[in-house]
Order: sequence, then structure tokens, then C-alpha cells
Amino acid sequence: MSHPKFTPDQFRVLFDWPVQWGDQDLFGHVNNTVYFRWFESARVDYLHRLGMARLHGDEALGPILAHIGCNFRRQLQYPDTVRIGTHITHIGRTSMTIEQALWSTAQNLALAADVTSTIVLFDYNPQKPIHVPENIRRQIEELEGRKLA
Amino acid sequence: MSHPKFTPDQFRVLFDWPVQWGDQDLFGHVNNTVYFRWFESARVDYLHRLGMARLHGDEALGPILAHIGCNFRRQLQYPDTVRIGTHITHIGRTSMTIEQALWSTAQNLALAADVTSTIVLFDYNPQKPIHVPENIRRQIEELEGRKLA
Amino acid sequence: MSHPKFTPDQFRVLFDWPVQWGDQDLFGHVNNTVYFRWFESARVDYLHRLGMARLHGDEALGPILAHIGCNFRRQLQYPDTVRIGTHITHIGRTSMTIEQALWSTAQNLALAADVTSTIVLFDYNPQKPIHVPENIRRQIEELEGRKLA
Amino acid sequence: MSHPKFTPDQFRVLFDWPVQWGDQDLFGHVNNTVYFRWFESARVDYLHRLGMARLHGDEALGPILAHIGCNFRRQLQYPDTVRIGTHITHIGRTSMTIEQALWSTAQNLALAADVTSTIVLFDYNPQKPIHVPENIRRQIEELEGRKLA
Repeated sequence: MSHPKFTPDQFRVLFDWPVQWGDQDLFGHVNNTVYFRWFESARVDYLHRLGMARLHGDEALGPILAHIGCNFRRQLQYPDTVRIGTHITHIGRTSMTIEQALWSTAQNLALAADVTSTIVLFDYNPQKPIHVPENIRRQIEELEGRKLA
Repeated sequence: MSHPKFTPDQFRVLFDWPVQWGDQDLFGHVNNTVYFRWFESARVDYLHRLGMARLHGDEALGPILAHIGCNFRRQLQYPDTVRIGTHITHIGRTSMTIEQALWSTAQNLALAADVTSTIVLFDYNPQKPIHVPENIRRQIEELEGRKLA
Repeated sequence: MSHPKFTPDQFRVLFDWPVQWGDQDLFGHVNNTVYFRWFESARVDYLHRLGMARLHGDEALGPILAHIGCNFRRQLQYPDTVRIGTHITHIGRTSMTIEQALWSTAQNLALAADVTSTIVLFDYNPQKPIHVPENIRRQIEELEGRKLA
Repeated sequence: MSHPKFTPDQFRVLFDWPVQWGDQDLFGHVNNTVYFRWFESARVDYLHRLGMARLHGDEALGPILAHIGCNFRRQLQYPDTVRIGTHITHIGRTSMTIEQALWSTAQNLALAADVTSTIVLFDYNPQKPIHVPENIRRQIEELEGRKLA
């Protein structure tokens, strides 16, 4: 099973994360909700590199998740370390598209899941989306090493 | 904001669930991972009504999540009770499509999220998908009150 | 197994909570971390009745957990509904002692766990404990129906 | 604030774990339930080193948590990496006492929490505690480098 679109070398931002025993559910594999926690952590790590959002409670501005779609391709078990690749593939007026892939170290970096998210930059005070600032766009393009539509 | 496709009266199986204070994250709203836990609980509740899966650890047979896509439409906060509608909209050879919608009681049953999942019936012993048994199909059609392709 | 100290009629504040399938871990019972989430929810519910803390992110004042000790007496499984009793048994200068007990409906209200917590009233701005205000003490004594040392 | 009993050099088994953004709650610090997940992961890591329990769902034998008591000494925030020390301080007939301490890298290894747990070796088939086997006792004493009462 090879996925040319989802190999680690196509991501500039990689994030390794150990599996916890308690991530597993009654079926003996990592529960689906845990993947979303991991993907969130990898997105936060990505945004931190941009300095895009302090992501703290006293901040009025932050990214908000509008859509997320995930393909679960392999079951995961403890012990393992997952590697997550995160990149932004599209920047719109108020939103961005993020693609992420997750590989299992214990399974020779087989693709275990991939996910596409839409996040909206949000001002919590007027509770309104805001335009993606030009300097943020430039920082993302620099991090990704290419122009983004 | 009305969504003709996602109103409670279009779901025969409804499931109410209270929001916990700890479901909220630093941004002051329910964290995205919690929605997936709720949707899982509502799916399990649905499957229990069918007697389709004992869903216990010693069972070799169970549903496995292959894909899930979620639209987040409204932020949620404690205290609230969410109502989740679950129905199966398609039955394939080894998979089923489940649609779910989530409304907020505190926001006058406004739609807060909707989700589409693909689950595969899975035999954990040979680690292979199995065909949806005919009696399961009939039970689902009876619960839904209509024929399913 | 009877615990004269931990029967539902010795608690004025009771809180029912449904077990989720995903609360269970690989061992086939509810994971220990879930008990602490439930106890937290029951404490928040108790504090809400007092109006003691808005418990929101923009509040500078809130309760902080200093110690918690839990006896796990019975394993729990889905489906079940747990009942949690919460009462304050001692009020100090800056801290309060909370006792909680948890019974399983599916096991005829057998005691499944009991917990003792110390919480400190905390002002997050100077990051200092504060004295328990006299009106809070009075509200608690009214709720508990007795004087508290 | 120095705790002579809880310094990293007094533990032979140390376990580092990164804090996730989503571990934080509305109060802007890591939620108490997360500590218990971390302590569980560190205990599982310890037991794995002993080969004491495969800790899988199909195992009839496993450790069960009977009591846990935790002192929360410092608030934690993302980003940080916590270091957890785990040792067994007492072995009884069917139970063991585990002490754990947790330090914050971001706070110069200040002690953030310490916890004492009692675990019982449990045979899930007859649902009974079992005696701690002599070879397990010897492995633990070897790992700890001292005789245990």
C-alpha cells in the first residue's frame, strides 16, 4: 500500500509522538478520538513555528476548526511512535486548508491515517472570521517553500 | 441558519448527552476531540439497538471506522446538553455510511455539527472485512423505516 | 460490602452520569482517568449550585485542586449510569475538603469508588490562595444543612 | 520548595513526556485528569521493563489500581516536557505500593506533583487477586537495586 501523496519527504514539518497504553480502547487499538488529539497537537506545533497564534486563553484571536475529514488506514497499538506530517496546501480569504498524514514507526512508517482540515482565523471578541494577514501568508509560504493559492 | 437535511425529526434514533466542564479547552469552547467521542457513543448506542455488535473486548467481530468527516458549525460551552441524531443512509457489501447531526439545547437546538462516517464490519481474528449479514441489513431497514441501497 | 459512610442518603447533592463505551480501556473496564473527570464534573456541579465560581476562562478566581485521593472499589463497564454524591466536610482558611462517593446503577448502587479532595480558593492574577469568603461558607453550610469546622 | 524525597536521582526509572496543547483546560493549565493518564503511562512503562504484564486485552492477568493519592504542587502549561520518576516501595502479598513524582522541565525540574498508588495483581478470569510471584518480586528488587518488604 503506497500513497505517493503521503510520504514523509513531502512534508517540511514533521512531529513525532509516542503512543500511550491508555490511548487504546476495548478493541485493542488506538481509539479514533486520539488521532484527532494528535492532529490538533501537530497543527498547534505548526502554528507555533509561525508565531501565528499564541493560542492562549487570554488571546482574542485564534484558529478555529471548521471542517475535518480523516481516513483511517491502519490500526495502531501501544507501544509505537507516530510521525505526523503537516502542511498548508491552500490559503483563502479567511480560511486555510491543512493536510496531515500519520505514519507508524512500529509498522515501518506505513501510512496509518490522513486528514484534511479547514481552519478559519477567528476573532473571539466580535466572534467573526478575519482575513488571513499578508505577513502570515508570507511566513507560511516561506515555511512551505512555495507559493500558495 | 437552517439545514433542511439536519433536523431532529429526520432521525429516528436520538441520543441526548450532557456537556462536561472539562470538555472545554483553553479557547473556552468544547474541544473538537470531544465531538468525536460523542459521535462514537451515539453510534455505539445505535448499534446496541440492533444487537449488531456486543462491542466487547472478547468479541472477534466489530465495526471499524474507515472514514469520518465532520463540519463544525457552532461553538459549544458548558453547561449544555447536546442532542445527536444518527442514521444509516447506505449499506454496501462490507461497509455502511452513517450520518449524524448534533444540536445544542442551550442554543435552541441549533445545528452545532454534522458528520458522515464510513464503518466497515470487521473480523478481528483474520483481520478482514466481512459482508454485512442479511439479517443486520433487515434490522437496520426496520429501524430506519425504509429500504437502503 | 456495605460502607456506612458512603450511602447516597448521606449526600444532599447527587449527580447522575452515563458511562460511555469509550470510557473503557483495554482491560474491559472504565479507565481510572475517567473517574477523575466524573468527580471533577460533580464538583463543578456542586460549585455551580453555590454560584461560587463562574469557572470560566476570563475569571481570575477559581478553585484549584491541591490533593485528591481515590479508592477504587469496583470495576465499571458500559452500559451503566453512575451516581456521584458530593459534600464538603471541612472548611479551612483557604481550603476546603470535599468527599465524594460513586455508585453503579448496574450493580444495584454498589459503591464503586470514593474520593477525598482538598481544593484551594485561588486568585489567578497574583497566583495566590485567598481566604474562603464568609458568604461562601454560609452558602455551603446552608446547602449541607449543618455547621462546618 | 525542595522535597528531599522527590528528586530525580532517587528514581531509577524515569520517563519523559511532552505536554499537549489540548491537555490544558479552561483555567489555562493542564487538567488534573491528564496527570493520571501520565502516571498510568509511566507505570505501564515500568511494568513493561519487568515483562510483568503484557497488558493486552486478551491477557487474563493484569495489575489493577486499588488506590491512588496525588498531591498537585505546581500548575503546568503547554509547551513543556514533564519527567516522571516511578519506583515500587513496598511489595505485599497481593499488592504493591508505587510512588511517582513529576517534574516540569520548563520550570527547571520543579516538583509539580507526586503520587502514591496501590496496585493489586489481578486474575480477570476468576476475578480474584493473586499473590505476587517470587520471580516478579526478584525482578523488581533487581530493578530497584534493593530488598523490598
